[in-house]
Amino acid sequence: MKELLERLIEKNRYLAQYGEVASYIPKLKSANPNDVGVCILDMDGNMTCSGVYNKKFTIQSISKVIALMLALVDNGEEEVFSKVGWESTDEPFNSFYKLDLSLENKPANPMINSGAIITTSMIKGDAEDKFTRILDTIRKITGNHSINYNREVYESERATGDRNRAIAYLLKNKGLLEDDVEEVLNAYFKQCSIEVDLIDLAKIGVFLANGCKTIDGEYEGCNSDIATILIAVMTTCGMYDFSGEFAAKVGIPSKSGVAGGILSVVPNRYGIGIYGPALDKHGNSIVGYGILKDLSKELGLNMFKVWEKNCCNIKYAYK
Amino acid sequence: MKELLERLIEKNRYLAQYGEVASYIPKLKSANPNDVGVCILDMDGNMTCSGVYNKKFTIQSISKVIALMLALVDNGEEEVFSKVGWESTDEPFNSFYKLDLSLENKPANPMINSGAIITTSMIKGDAEDKFTRILDTIRKITGNHSINYNREVYESERATGDRNRAIAYLLKNKGLLEDDVEEVLNAYFKQCSIEVDLIDLAKIGVFLANGCKTIDGEYEGCNSDIATILIAVMTTCGMYDFSGEFAAKVGIPSKSGVAGGILSVVPNRYGIGIYGPALDKHGNSIVGYGILKDLSKELGLNMFKVWEKNCCNIKYAYK
Amino acid sequence: MKELLERLIEKNRYLAQYGEVASYIPKLKSANPNDVGVCILDMDGNMTCSGVYNKKFTIQSISKVIALMLALVDNGEEEVFSKVGWESTDEPFNSFYKLDLSLENKPANPMINSGAIITTSMIKGDAEDKFTRILDTIRKITGNHSINYNREVYESERATGDRNRAIAYLLKNKGLLEDDVEEVLNAYFKQCSIEVDLIDLAKIGVFLANGCKTIDGEYEGCNSDIATILIAVMTTCGMYDFSGEFAAKVGIPSKSGVAGGILSVVPNRYGIGIYGPALDKHGNSIVGYGILKDLSKELGLNMFKVWEKNCCNIKYAYK
Amino acid sequence: MKELLERLIEKNRYLAQYGEVASYIPKLKSANPNDVGVCILDMDGNMTCSGVYNKKFTIQSISKVIALMLALVDNGEEEVFSKVGWESTDEPFNSFYKLDLSLENKPANPMINSGAIITTSMIKGDAEDKFTRILDTIRKITGNHSINYNREVYESERATGDRNRAIAYLLKNKGLLEDDVEEVLNAYFKQCSIEVDLIDLAKIGVFLANGCKTIDGEYEGCNSDIATILIAVMTTCGMYDFSGEFAAKVGIPSKSGVAGGILSVVPNRYGIGIYGPALDKHGNSIVGYGILKDLSKELGLNMFKVWEKNCCNIKYAYK
Repeated sequence: MKELLERLIEKNRYLAQYGEVASYIPKLKSANPNDVGVCILDMDGNMTCSGVYNKKFTIQSISKVIALMLALVDNGEEEVFSKVGWESTDEPFNSFYKLDLSLENKPANPMINSGAIITTSMIKGDAEDKFTRILDTIRKITGNHSINYNREVYESERATGDRNRAIAYLLKNKGLLEDDVEEVLNAYFKQCSIEVDLIDLAKIGVFLANGCKTIDGEYEGCNSDIATILIAVMTTCGMYDFSGEFAAKVGIPSKSGVAGGILSVVPNRYGIGIYGPALDKHGNSIVGYGILKDLSKELGLNMFKVWEKNCCNIKYAYK
Repeated sequence: MKELLERLIEKNRYLAQYGEVASYIPKLKSANPNDVGVCILDMDGNMTCSGVYNKKFTIQSISKVIALMLALVDNGEEEVFSKVGWESTDEPFNSFYKLDLSLENKPANPMINSGAIITTSMIKGDAEDKFTRILDTIRKITGNHSINYNREVYESERATGDRNRAIAYLLKNKGLLEDDVEEVLNAYFKQCSIEVDLIDLAKIGVFLANGCKTIDGEYEGCNSDIATILIAVMTTCGMYDFSGEFAAKVGIPSKSGVAGGILSVVPNRYGIGIYGPALDKHGNSIVGYGILKDLSKELGLNMFKVWEKNCCNIKYAYK
Repeated sequence: MKELLERLIEKNRYLAQYGEVASYIPKLKSANPNDVGVCILDMDGNMTCSGVYNKKFTIQSISKVIALMLALVDNGEEEVFSKVGWESTDEPFNSFYKLDLSLENKPANPMINSGAIITTSMIKGDAEDKFTRILDTIRKITGNHSINYNREVYESERATGDRNRAIAYLLKNKGLLEDDVEEVLNAYFKQCSIEVDLIDLAKIGVFLANGCKTIDGEYEGCNSDIATILIAVMTTCGMYDFSGEFAAKVGIPSKSGVAGGILSVVPNRYGIGIYGPALDKHGNSIVGYGILKDLSKELGLNMFKVWEKNCCNIKYAYK
Repeated sequence: MKELLERLIEKNRYLAQYGEVASYIPKLKSANPNDVGVCILDMDGNMTCSGVYNKKFTIQSISKVIALMLALVDNGEEEVFSKVGWESTDEPFNSFYKLDLSLENKPANPMINSGAIITTSMIKGDAEDKFTRILDTIRKITGNHSINYNREVYESERATGDRNRAIAYLLKNKGLLEDDVEEVLNAYFKQCSIEVDLIDLAKIGVFLANGCKTIDGEYEGCNSDIATILIAVMTTCGMYDFSGEFAAKVGIPSKSGVAGGILSVVPNRYGIGIYGPALDKHGNSIVGYGILKDLSKELGLNMFKVWEKNCCNIKYAYK
């Protein structure tokens, strides 16, 4: 496995030149576009890593998966999806014109910004509690209690967050958001600023691949049904407005973040963390996508894949 | 299996009252909303059917899967997806305002009308050839050479097809369509009017579940890679603007038609055909959805499902 | 003239039943829908009023004319219209989806909320200064120094202003707004809450009809060119998404407010103030529209009107 | 007057370099961008022309004024505006996405393509009659019976008219259009292809400025009320998505065409025809706009203009 990861990193490394690191905040802009790393963790606890895997980076949109999980744990599926939809969209992650058009009365799904602001607000407690719940959950899942948020990134996110403010005020105007906007956005910006490495991400992946089981056993409130929802939503909406093509070509439920991380889950089999800060035009790690596409092919992980070997002599009973 | 199907039909039959049959053409309007049927065909050729399964109905949007398949066979993946996107949308199937906005330079995916008009036009040959290819393919896949299109439905589709004409002329205006509009629409309307029963649909399902293998072996030009694309696109885009919720709750790649049919594919395992002409607001069979949701649960077919049994003692190697 | 006004009030009074008073804040909701009043002031200083003309009401969107005037005085035409457009729109006053779509890089015109937030922000000084400038200008124009804003309405506007906050943050995100959002909105909400009566409105009307001349002579910085711009913008954009129909049927440059006021200007001839809090679906005084339509006909004020008497024997010189 | 026109032509001629001639059909593309001409006709029949004024060019969108006139003559104001709106729009002339969004149930106004297709269809008679009515009306207004359509341009319009076909089919789908699409479009394309010179345009202008009076007296069915509607609609919607800025800066009701013509009407005073095929980004003659702006200033034709001389000592009666 280690050799495979090394090989795929080397094979795909060149793709970085076709991408660009996020530039809207200084910390992201300073990332090294040539950094690449992968960790894969199986259900027996075997972790294999390669490349730049223990460098910390901000989790960004990958936290949307955890926010959705906690919103579901705290409110149940019906309540959550009364305020946010299930449907993927061909719009960018920060688009929200449809909310103004009243074509929809709620955000399309929980993986775009407008939807994630809703799920964050639905976590019980005040704004500080909401963020603490997310942080504690990530610590518990990974068993890594040193995980924290990066204050500099958080401050930058706040300083450049006017589009998210516009979204949140429109949600409030539409009765979808009860909290104070600045407070819920603080929780949102903080969760985006949580720093993880690839070992952490792979553990989060196995936690989901395993039906919300942590190293210490059950995660209270979460269960296999919630994990199924998370995995389905990651599949259809996890890679921004590239989710459909990613599903066909990789077929591994994944969620990307603008710092270059990708969290991937092979149900019942693997958790995968990938890092590569050069992004494609959709905001996904361009090298990460290349590696995942190859990894899926080599390990047969594409969930939509039909196996040629199944081919057999079919005698249709009712013909 | 037969008992299971009978039980699920009886359990979900009541849902018909919450839906409505399509009413834009007389033939669809005259359908009996209480008709329900299912056929399931496994890879060993065992066909189990229940309810109203041998009544013919028009295939409608389910033909979009075959049109995409033939477009891929004739042009290759790269060429096809240069003219139509991969991304699901939260818009209804007949929406096309984004094409006028130039937010996108092509239809979002091949399962909405605008995308399917493109894939139909990409099938080689003149308009008559395109339709004949689709009809012959369905005959070959099912081994049922009596399949044909319903002339009355075709005439009705033509007579009420002004929205599709608007779409096609806009596609032509944007340089995405080379054919004569009326001719390509004739092929499109005819393919929608092909009549099948549930035995036919289940066979099409197994054909895909089996990587494009017919009862007679290979389908020339198609292969496991194309089948994988079709299955992925059905998963993300197959149930109109309900595809995301359907993925999470059923987790079986499916494509519905407005006459009440649903084609479902469990990769490497089953082909399923369902019929129930009462539709929900998205245009999907309302009873069919209920049955598929139960069937998925009872047979464990949800591809996003995580199994509790996998839970185990994880010792993270790198902790 | 007094009899004419009385007659037109009585004739149009019944229209109130087809409208509704604004209900988003308590003060507006408590208005008497049957109140109707008119004042008309000619260039010789003759003021004629009828009906409920000295009851104070909040100026609301009519203040957008003054905000645009001051933005022009402080920045010049070129600078102002680099940040806001000149074009009318068939969208409601609080629509802003196009800003998210990037179909436009600026609000359509200064008479919709997004545009007025821009013009308010372009008035020199801090937020308090901006508002004070507007208030002082209205006092100076009318010679009525008792004019002030209604604190209760202002607080209500602030409390229900989330859609305007969404607009302002999106403007800020797009680089069109430099000020602190809450501060500029405070100035915006305060100016909307300024209380006037119909005598005040008629004086504002004559001020514009007279090329920015107050009772004391010149208004520093304003001039006939700016008045022309204001009158043109009122004509094309002043009555929300009813401006086009209003232009054809009334033909008097006007600006309405959601409290039921209408400011009308007959260039070089009259200033008119009308009040009637029952609103049509566009947000214009429904009785006020009826009265203005009749008044325009009776006094021949429609600027698009062609006079039959001009009909003459035309001998085309070049025929 | 002749000297004035000559001077303004020379002054504004240089603007042609900043525009571009329409290029979507060969005939338009072959126009000489440096051609400029003006004719102005007063109510006493004095015609003054300068520059290239007797070269024929296609009337294009200017015919929308005549189509609206005849639709009003044949159906009355209420019926016409039940199928097309009165409101200007900040969208380009060929935009129609809002019709698909169902934000509106009809085109915004009769000066954009979708609206003009409606008004053309509302002229009584079959498709050939509709066109003949328009042609005969223009002949009668101008007294120039040699006016005809250019067959080559008509054929080109038809050949490149797919966007208009998309519009028409969507209108038909929405129940706004009863006619056969190709037939009504033939009438539409033919009317756009009618060739006029500036003498003809100036006469059409005086006809409107004079309340629908031709050289021979009344135009049956038309009257001053209809002329007022046409002039108001030209003011708010006549110069595409530049109408608002044009109103403020020129203040003369006008309608432009993509071949470079502008029809201008100074109510009760002048009819003006201008030609200059180099277009700005909105589709208006770039030199024509420059000339009209100057002409308006020099002759005091801006209808929104406030005269400084009116300034007087105002004693407000009710102060």
